[in-house]
Amino acid sequence: MSSLCVLPPECLLQPFTVPQRLMLGPGPSNVPARITAAGAQPILGHLHAETIEIMNQIKSGIQYAFQTQNRVTLAVSGPGHAAMECAIFNSLEHGESVLIAINGIWGERAAEIAERIGAKVNTLVTSAGGYFTNEEIEQALDKYRPVVFFLTHGESSTGVVHPIDGIGDLCHKYNCLFLVDSVAALGGTPICMDEQGIDIMYTGSQKVLNAPPGTAPISFSERACQKIFNRRTKPISYFLDMNLLANYWGCDDKPVRVIKHLNTLIKGLENSWKRHKEVAEYFHKGLGEMGLKLFVQDKKARLPTVTTIVAPPGYDWREITGYIMKTYNMEISGGLGPSAGMVLRVGLMGCNSSKANVDKVLEALADALKHCHKSRV
Amino acid sequence: MSSLCVLPPECLLQPFTVPQRLMLGPGPSNVPARITAAGAQPILGHLHAETIEIMNQIKSGIQYAFQTQNRVTLAVSGPGHAAMECAIFNSLEHGESVLIAINGIWGERAAEIAERIGAKVNTLVTSAGGYFTNEEIEQALDKYRPVVFFLTHGESSTGVVHPIDGIGDLCHKYNCLFLVDSVAALGGTPICMDEQGIDIMYTGSQKVLNAPPGTAPISFSERACQKIFNRRTKPISYFLDMNLLANYWGCDDKPVRVIKHLNTLIKGLENSWKRHKEVAEYFHKGLGEMGLKLFVQDKKARLPTVTTIVAPPGYDWREITGYIMKTYNMEISGGLGPSAGMVLRVGLMGCNSSKANVDKVLEALADALKHCHKSRV
Repeated sequence: MSSLCVLPPECLLQPFTVPQRLMLGPGPSNVPARITAAGAQPILGHLHAETIEIMNQIKSGIQYAFQTQNRVTLAVSGPGHAAMECAIFNSLEHGESVLIAINGIWGERAAEIAERIGAKVNTLVTSAGGYFTNEEIEQALDKYRPVVFFLTHGESSTGVVHPIDGIGDLCHKYNCLFLVDSVAALGGTPICMDEQGIDIMYTGSQKVLNAPPGTAPISFSERACQKIFNRRTKPISYFLDMNLLANYWGCDDKPVRVIKHLNTLIKGLENSWKRHKEVAEYFHKGLGEMGLKLFVQDKKARLPTVTTIVAPPGYDWREITGYIMKTYNMEISGGLGPSAGMVLRVGLMGCNSSKANVDKVLEALADALKHCHKSRV
Repeated sequence: MSSLCVLPPECLLQPFTVPQRLMLGPGPSNVPARITAAGAQPILGHLHAETIEIMNQIKSGIQYAFQTQNRVTLAVSGPGHAAMECAIFNSLEHGESVLIAINGIWGERAAEIAERIGAKVNTLVTSAGGYFTNEEIEQALDKYRPVVFFLTHGESSTGVVHPIDGIGDLCHKYNCLFLVDSVAALGGTPICMDEQGIDIMYTGSQKVLNAPPGTAPISFSERACQKIFNRRTKPISYFLDMNLLANYWGCDDKPVRVIKHLNTLIKGLENSWKRHKEVAEYFHKGLGEMGLKLFVQDKKARLPTVTTIVAPPGYDWREITGYIMKTYNMEISGGLGPSAGMVLRVGLMGCNSSKANVDKVLEALADALKHCHKSRV
């Protein structure tokens, strides 16, 4: 072989300093120093005794955060999308029927994933900002008789927290698994996997848990295990096959596999729920006093981790988020999917959920409304 | 909802100290302090200007490490298995024919993944420690007429580095994409993607690149892009869909997405190749002087990153690796797949590839052979 055709890129020879920034978008949230410091610990091998101990600890922590005794509880090595595919790939086989509740982008995404693997997808759809009653859900379960029902707990695109009570029982009445996406909500608003009859649930590390992205906690009930470990066909993905992952994680008392962060745990779940609620209400009150309107009408459906604010009339929302990023080094974001162009979104997740941060974002918003261009409405 | 059913696990209230350990198994390798320190930097959002800059830098770094000008070059958010599935999921459609060279566990794994998505899998198989001649490969290409040919560059289960020269041309003669797994070899032994006509190649972060696991560099040639961006059907995975990933990474000059580590880069590729070769030869000489035999007979087929040593006759290999872990706090490993029970494997990857480490592992091995139980052979 001759000498190198591609030379070392100059840009990589310079050190790169990552700026400190207050991240109040819908995620990632800020990671506290004690957690980033843990990321600087040495790497272990995937079969070392300490790794197995750490994985068991992570499992306990996820069981606590999810409020579950599920044996099959672990963290997928990947972002939230990997956990979403893990849940759908393992629980559905080609041609099986799934019912997906769509009240924002995450239901749409689940439908897209289920379609790709050849599941029979039926949907229950409502407009942005809405959610479903248990009656509507039961009617759809009765009509479509799915093997899995997918629901988004915290719909970060619209700022809606979906009621969960009673839905597990309905699913089980119709012999269906209850699958819940709680990426943007878990830890910030109450959810109890076992008590609420949830069969499969996952979250992300980079939201309320304030850990770096790249690991995604997931858990399967015994009822779910009956289904996923007795499939006719192998799941489409080897990487996300729960037969292998459950084995890696010692969920069947066999050897386990590599993990990286011991950071995804929160202490005091009830305190966390309470704080997120109080801080969100404090924020909503402040927004009201500024004359800004909330996108979600129904108070109890407002997601405490991600607030959607009706985009201030007469302004370009991009100018507002850009002004706040530039002037305050603070991230807030625009809408997503069904809320694109209609809202501003402010995430107050984990350590970012504090009245001090609310005061900062209210000040920044007020200043932005003063300085950004306003057309006549 | 009543009070919590699952209480906070006691184990999580204690701090956990990760031990320093010399990791000379087939990966993960040790991560230098300057790289773990980078992992302790603040998290950025996926659309922040600095993130886009970092992603462009990572792209340049991968282009350098892979020796390619490929526009579609990025890092998958996941372990090596995710990159393997990304390569296979995107390049093959249901029913299409793939030829897989199997001389160890990684070819077997690729065949399993391709089968799961319904590809028509043909294999070219040789015994553990062996590899294929270009004539054998051409005969198989001619016979099976696959759309993709899969080859493992560094077969870590047997310690074989596969010759690459000429195979790209053969593949293109038969209108086939050349897909190379270089997880255990890249950076430690020469490979030049463009010059050698490789269409798809991926590696892992936790081997020679000495970064934490969880990101996997991958690159696609223009010829590969012609195929993957003109599919009849969508790839089975949304998470690993190159249409979306290429867009996230700005490979089509649109916005880009989150990454975490700026650590996967090596400086001085030719120096790295040279060092890995010299250190491996120094190690192999030392092993010979101790009376130990190498598993791979053909000198030029010996992978410089992972050395396979014939398990010393009369010993239980588990006792040897256990003794070295306990006495020296050093990891070496046994065989895997076709080499299970037959070999000891020693990885000397990236910063771990040094004569000082060779001296340490030779001393540990000599000591283990003295202290471990030996039966009459």
